[in-house]
Amino acid sequence: MMSCPEHLVRSEGGRIGLFVLDGLGGLPHPDHGTTELEAAQTPHLDELAANSSLGRIQLLPPGLTPGSGPGHLSLFGHDPMQLEFGRGLLEALGSGYPLAPGEIAARGNFCTLDDAGLVTDRRAGRPADAECQRLCQMLSGQVTVDGAQVQLLPGKEHRFTWVLTGDGLGAGVNDNDPQVTGRAPVAFTGRDDASERTATLASQWLQQATGVLKDESVANSALLRGFSTRPEVATFEQLYRLKSGAIAIYPMYRGVAQLVGMESLDAGNSLADQAAAVTAAVDNGFDFIFVHHKDTDTAGHSGDFDAKVAAIEAFDAVLPSFLAAGLDVIAITGDHATPTSMKEHSWHPVPLLVHSERVLPVAGVPFHDRGCLYGDIGTIRGPELMPLLLAHADRLDKYGA
Amino acid sequence: MMSCPEHLVRSEGGRIGLFVLDGLGGLPHPDHGTTELEAAQTPHLDELAANSSLGRIQLLPPGLTPGSGPGHLSLFGHDPMQLEFGRGLLEALGSGYPLAPGEIAARGNFCTLDDAGLVTDRRAGRPADAECQRLCQMLSGQVTVDGAQVQLLPGKEHRFTWVLTGDGLGAGVNDNDPQVTGRAPVAFTGRDDASERTATLASQWLQQATGVLKDESVANSALLRGFSTRPEVATFEQLYRLKSGAIAIYPMYRGVAQLVGMESLDAGNSLADQAAAVTAAVDNGFDFIFVHHKDTDTAGHSGDFDAKVAAIEAFDAVLPSFLAAGLDVIAITGDHATPTSMKEHSWHPVPLLVHSERVLPVAGVPFHDRGCLYGDIGTIRGPELMPLLLAHADRLDKYGA
Repeated sequence: MMSCPEHLVRSEGGRIGLFVLDGLGGLPHPDHGTTELEAAQTPHLDELAANSSLGRIQLLPPGLTPGSGPGHLSLFGHDPMQLEFGRGLLEALGSGYPLAPGEIAARGNFCTLDDAGLVTDRRAGRPADAECQRLCQMLSGQVTVDGAQVQLLPGKEHRFTWVLTGDGLGAGVNDNDPQVTGRAPVAFTGRDDASERTATLASQWLQQATGVLKDESVANSALLRGFSTRPEVATFEQLYRLKSGAIAIYPMYRGVAQLVGMESLDAGNSLADQAAAVTAAVDNGFDFIFVHHKDTDTAGHSGDFDAKVAAIEAFDAVLPSFLAAGLDVIAITGDHATPTSMKEHSWHPVPLLVHSERVLPVAGVPFHDRGCLYGDIGTIRGPELMPLLLAHADRLDKYGA
Repeated sequence: MMSCPEHLVRSEGGRIGLFVLDGLGGLPHPDHGTTELEAAQTPHLDELAANSSLGRIQLLPPGLTPGSGPGHLSLFGHDPMQLEFGRGLLEALGSGYPLAPGEIAARGNFCTLDDAGLVTDRRAGRPADAECQRLCQMLSGQVTVDGAQVQLLPGKEHRFTWVLTGDGLGAGVNDNDPQVTGRAPVAFTGRDDASERTATLASQWLQQATGVLKDESVANSALLRGFSTRPEVATFEQLYRLKSGAIAIYPMYRGVAQLVGMESLDAGNSLADQAAAVTAAVDNGFDFIFVHHKDTDTAGHSGDFDAKVAAIEAFDAVLPSFLAAGLDVIAITGDHATPTSMKEHSWHPVPLLVHSERVLPVAGVPFHDRGCLYGDIGTIRGPELMPLLLAHADRLDKYGA
């Protein structure tokens, strides 16, 4: 899985900053044919690119579109296709809950059942977020299970994350969601003793929850699916001997970073706050700092070309502060493309810039979706990035004599 | 082996056309230094390329030259190095016989034996094709085996395909070809019970055939080698949820397409017929249409540079009809290179064009052997093509949230 033999990793070396502009990659605007990154006015990125190595990153095999979890894990050096990455875990990460080893997470739906106990709406009419929060809070206060704790993390509309904390729990439990209306929820069963314990506690929770909700107009029961544990993911400390920190404003990205052992640092609420946080992290001895910028992806999902251009330009405006923080190696890339013309993630490779004292800049090659085709790095797979950055930071021994 | 997790494949999406110009890749002409594709006047391809993603396909690992079977299987998403692909099967496919599961095929040679039963010519003096056909017909009429049927498919000169149909047959049978003259053919034996049944029937057939041929001047016996069954190949329906059809004039390519579950559609006798067939296939609800153009390869084998240029230009002339058929994704590539300067297949990567609404065209990059080096797709492996085309057709879910 790993492209980086651990015995070559040094304990000392330069400080690395990985700046992820979420959904950075784009496609040509239908009118003028330039991509978001090509259209953006980025004087600081341009100047940096002239003294950097450029290339592209293929996060997953060609044609496969990464979600944010797999996209980041790929950048962090893992093959996301090999990681058990259950729905429940993804939901937990999305709620900013990194799930401890041994904990179980499932994706929850509030739903409605008829008098015969058959599902009438698997999404309970998509209630308002505030209603979902109210129901989660009510259930958290009134439902308890034997010798374990259930936490409910409200999501959007009917969605919540169900987290079970206790000893000896397994995740080999079936979904109770029958997937269609007109059927009763499926009984929980476990594939082994530990999973049977989870199934028993889930049944107990569900029975009580249905009781608490019996007079609710919004939803009178819940469906749970995608029971999962935190996968065994080697940490940055184990893999790379790096003291690593994440400066991410949104919880999902803090969650993914924590999964690989990064410390979550206070990111504030803006790029300027993040720049200050990078400086502080360098001063506090962090070797590797992951900075996440969300707005590029948000604009991509909205299909708002100008907003994505503005999000790139906003990053460019703060870049001098990031560069002044004292990092030795700077990488700037995306976790996937989110072309505004598609309004969703896509499979296209993303641009990559690596700046250090050991680069091979190619004259006239800009940090663009197409310019990066001609950079000296070429197109690398996601898990090949970390060894490259370690090398630039003088943190890898030579292989062989 | 597969680059495309099946659970991500959607049941609906755009229609895909894969146009294979057989042996498309070329090398520079010794006089003027341009390749066949570079020399061809292709106004329609040029226009399409300006609105397409370009790249190259590496059908097999670098340096390995694909035959037509492996070349196409690679394009269809299989790793040909992992497929059991016996000589007999290749011969059967080459004869347009797709071999049913359970059938056994072997490559046959007519040969001559002396009075002591020793091989004097393993190719019976390379008889004319018509003689081979006559011998096959004669044997088919006069030789029968117990509880099974033998079909003979005549090939060129001394070559034929031997097909055994019956129950409980195995392919673990040795060649009887001693590979050198002056030795007797080897007795057939089977590695297991089912193969022993095949060996017994092959011996029975050979004994009778040698009797029938005893007074023939051309050949008085036969050698069989490469006993094989149809390999277990996942179909396009299973892998990609695509209703797929092949529009190929030559039997070998229909055979390979049938091996992956494509329906063989009437291709007529010309590119114009094939264009009409594509339109009909779109109208008949096919999701994936494979079109095979043979003339590029034929000219390559002949070493006729101008003929290969003409074959490319003939495809270009019909391209507007193909484009008008209503496909959403168009891929144009080759199954291997057949440089006229080499007069045979070669290992060089082949040009690739992908057209859809989700492409990143690079200005000034033509659809040429060398132009494609600078396309945004880069150089991908053969089995990576299908996931990419599925993505362009909006037929793949995102991986992870």
